[in-house]
Amino acid sequence: MATKLVSSIQEAIRLCGLKDGMTVSFHHHLRNGDYVLNLVMEEIAAQGIRDLTMNASSLFETHSPLLGHIENHVVSLIQTDYMAAGLGRAISQGIMEKPVQFRTHGGRPSDICRGATPIDVAFIAAPTADPMGNCSGKYGPSACGSLGYAFADAMHAKKVVVITDNLVPYPLQDWSISEDFVDYVVTVDAIGNPKGIVSGTTQITRDPVGLVMASHAAQVIANSGLLKDGFSFQTGAGGASLAAAKFLKDIMLEKGIQGSFGLGGITGYMVDMLQAGCFRNLMDVQCFDLKAVESIRTDPRHQEISAMQYASPTAKSAVVDSLDVVILGATEIDTDFNVNVHTDSNGYIMGGSGGHSDTAAGAKLSMIIAPMFRARLPIVTDRVQCISTPGRDIDVLVTQGGIAVNPRNAELKERLVKAGLPIMDIRELKEKTERITGAPKTIRRGDRVVAEVIYRDGTLLDSIYNVPGEQR
Amino acid sequence: MATKLVSSIQEAIRLCGLKDGMTVSFHHHLRNGDYVLNLVMEEIAAQGIRDLTMNASSLFETHSPLLGHIENHVVSLIQTDYMAAGLGRAISQGIMEKPVQFRTHGGRPSDICRGATPIDVAFIAAPTADPMGNCSGKYGPSACGSLGYAFADAMHAKKVVVITDNLVPYPLQDWSISEDFVDYVVTVDAIGNPKGIVSGTTQITRDPVGLVMASHAAQVIANSGLLKDGFSFQTGAGGASLAAAKFLKDIMLEKGIQGSFGLGGITGYMVDMLQAGCFRNLMDVQCFDLKAVESIRTDPRHQEISAMQYASPTAKSAVVDSLDVVILGATEIDTDFNVNVHTDSNGYIMGGSGGHSDTAAGAKLSMIIAPMFRARLPIVTDRVQCISTPGRDIDVLVTQGGIAVNPRNAELKERLVKAGLPIMDIRELKEKTERITGAPKTIRRGDRVVAEVIYRDGTLLDSIYNVPGEQR
Repeated sequence: MATKLVSSIQEAIRLCGLKDGMTVSFHHHLRNGDYVLNLVMEEIAAQGIRDLTMNASSLFETHSPLLGHIENHVVSLIQTDYMAAGLGRAISQGIMEKPVQFRTHGGRPSDICRGATPIDVAFIAAPTADPMGNCSGKYGPSACGSLGYAFADAMHAKKVVVITDNLVPYPLQDWSISEDFVDYVVTVDAIGNPKGIVSGTTQITRDPVGLVMASHAAQVIANSGLLKDGFSFQTGAGGASLAAAKFLKDIMLEKGIQGSFGLGGITGYMVDMLQAGCFRNLMDVQCFDLKAVESIRTDPRHQEISAMQYASPTAKSAVVDSLDVVILGATEIDTDFNVNVHTDSNGYIMGGSGGHSDTAAGAKLSMIIAPMFRARLPIVTDRVQCISTPGRDIDVLVTQGGIAVNPRNAELKERLVKAGLPIMDIRELKEKTERITGAPKTIRRGDRVVAEVIYRDGTLLDSIYNVPGEQR
Repeated sequence: MATKLVSSIQEAIRLCGLKDGMTVSFHHHLRNGDYVLNLVMEEIAAQGIRDLTMNASSLFETHSPLLGHIENHVVSLIQTDYMAAGLGRAISQGIMEKPVQFRTHGGRPSDICRGATPIDVAFIAAPTADPMGNCSGKYGPSACGSLGYAFADAMHAKKVVVITDNLVPYPLQDWSISEDFVDYVVTVDAIGNPKGIVSGTTQITRDPVGLVMASHAAQVIANSGLLKDGFSFQTGAGGASLAAAKFLKDIMLEKGIQGSFGLGGITGYMVDMLQAGCFRNLMDVQCFDLKAVESIRTDPRHQEISAMQYASPTAKSAVVDSLDVVILGATEIDTDFNVNVHTDSNGYIMGGSGGHSDTAAGAKLSMIIAPMFRARLPIVTDRVQCISTPGRDIDVLVTQGGIAVNPRNAELKERLVKAGLPIMDIRELKEKTERITGAPKTIRRGDRVVAEVIYRDGTLLDSIYNVPGEQR
């Protein structure tokens, strides 16, 4: 039987005809356990190829060898949806000539599908594959569950290389990406470190502040008018968000409410809610922990979705468009409800939108959950350093010290006031916080753009500037 | 929740902006039970839209109202992979100005994907759908199983309308086509007549001639050198083909051979082979009977594939490329092994390639199984009236009176001679047949091209001429 197996990553790169100035792409389902991006980039560098654009759905600490490839001009432009703090700090210090292009988890596949960000060679880390390239994230020693972020790359890149450490006979059953999109298959010893790919189930917070926030969050949802049969929900993997999900689950079970679906990056807590009957289905673009991986592999109610189906604004529709409530985080939020998830309190890049602005745009109720202050720095500011998600898409900020509703959503405010929740104006919340922390210091900002925040529709939303005094 | 539900087919057509000269598309999974094509075309005609191109994966007897739409210039060009005899007769009589464009089940999606045959509005008959357009063929009163032929249409048409008689709450679980491709959803009382959609299991032949052919076919496979672990197989739904599958199953079970996959239009007999352990998987682009529909719904080893994954020559690969043996039919085969499946013995159109030339091109062993003659007309001719599949892709012709091997496959011939099978030159088989039937009459052929046979790579393979003396 003909196969697409080639002997090495080196050989695959050669066969793909990768040349200076082209674009390579990677997905991030192996998260901080990923070996593939580094393996591939090392080979590319060894072949003397330079000036590449790297389109990676997210970049983690494990990808820090990328800094060397930037210094050596192997990579000259980065397009990504999220960047961990180590890489982010270097970018903020100004190591790249071209600004990083930050997109969202919906905007990235949208721009790939409409041809705005063409990919020459996509490298797909596949926990299981067959010799013709049918592949899945659900099986194998490096199983990561959903491969949702890799679909756009596979469907639109000129050349597609599947890299696996678990080759099975043709045909692989229950593939996610099918052979008709794949050019070459390479086997390696390991595509990732299972410990970094998925964590054990994250613990819900035991911190009293976090529990108060979570309780407020659950009460906001319970009184929003949205918590009824058919309810749909997304939340993150932070301790307080998970605690909010736990409280919400209790309310739903007590009231006998059956939701329609849970969405997102899926954690074991969402799986618990599925199994308890809180939802009919889970729609999963990315698995956050082992319980989610086990569930997507074995439970037909738990379904993989592509990033297009998850959140693309140019798809005919995306699941975010049917979402009732999303709980999101923030490093800062300003009095116009604009949210920053890209930079830390010193202005260094340490994150990215991911699906933040996609879900905020789609959901009927977009909630930010955050403590009033972190390390004596208030969460509410006059103006965020970087707009990751526009304030028009945020409905409510929940902190331990009070809940602020966006004036655009007067009905919600009325409902929450009636429910006796501690509602206050966001400026009032800011002042209350500053009475504890003191006024925040002013952040020094350089005059060079080191990253562009591209909104999900492809327009420039904001720019991130270098942090001065530490340029290398 | 926002939905894509619109009140009627009429409304969907209006919202899609369908205009004179555009292209509409349909899939044929509901086969001779399909109501949707006629319902839609009736509405289009009522709206006074004319000069349309109809791209339909296949056309059955139930679609004969199309003749009226042709006469009234609602439809001016037909693109299809198969046309039943009633429609075919009218086309052969010359009722259309523009020749019908016949493609293959692999060539059609290839041409759609590469933009050679753009579709303005695709109408997708969906046995189950949700209000956002996620849809499946596996569930509902009109269940047809796989929706494989509709994927290319959904992914590439400018507008996509899902028409269902079984609307379920969002999100549909186990969708085939996802909401990110769908513009509108329409509910109707019934999308089809279940009796016409799938038959009960077709009976294997009891005709002695058919049984001899089937036995020969199984012996050819058994002695081909291909029947070993990992073996893959496709066969049609005709009585003799099914009998061949039955004999093959017995041989595989006796020898303890576990094949890799069964492919194609899937019948209950292939499901039997899966369940008996003859194959690990079924790859299903279309279900032929109720047993196949039940199996694809409930057995994870039985998997839906798109027409691109099935057979597209411009996909990175297709399953046909990994196929060992295919059993195919013929209305005629000539001494160069060219096969005709488009026209009958009088030159009238009564079929089409379907996946014939795709599987013949991909399979290691392409076998034609046919009786020496039908109604005293020999199967072997000097030159087929129409080349549906080029002789270079056919390895062997099996009849009740002898087996002819294409000289291009000398190794196969040697193997079969050694096995003691009745091998003869195809000219010898022709003469042997003509000694029984007499020399065939010459077919009168008109001088007007009524259909073009477009090979899977997009090139013109042959032309079909009108049948003279009966023009209307």
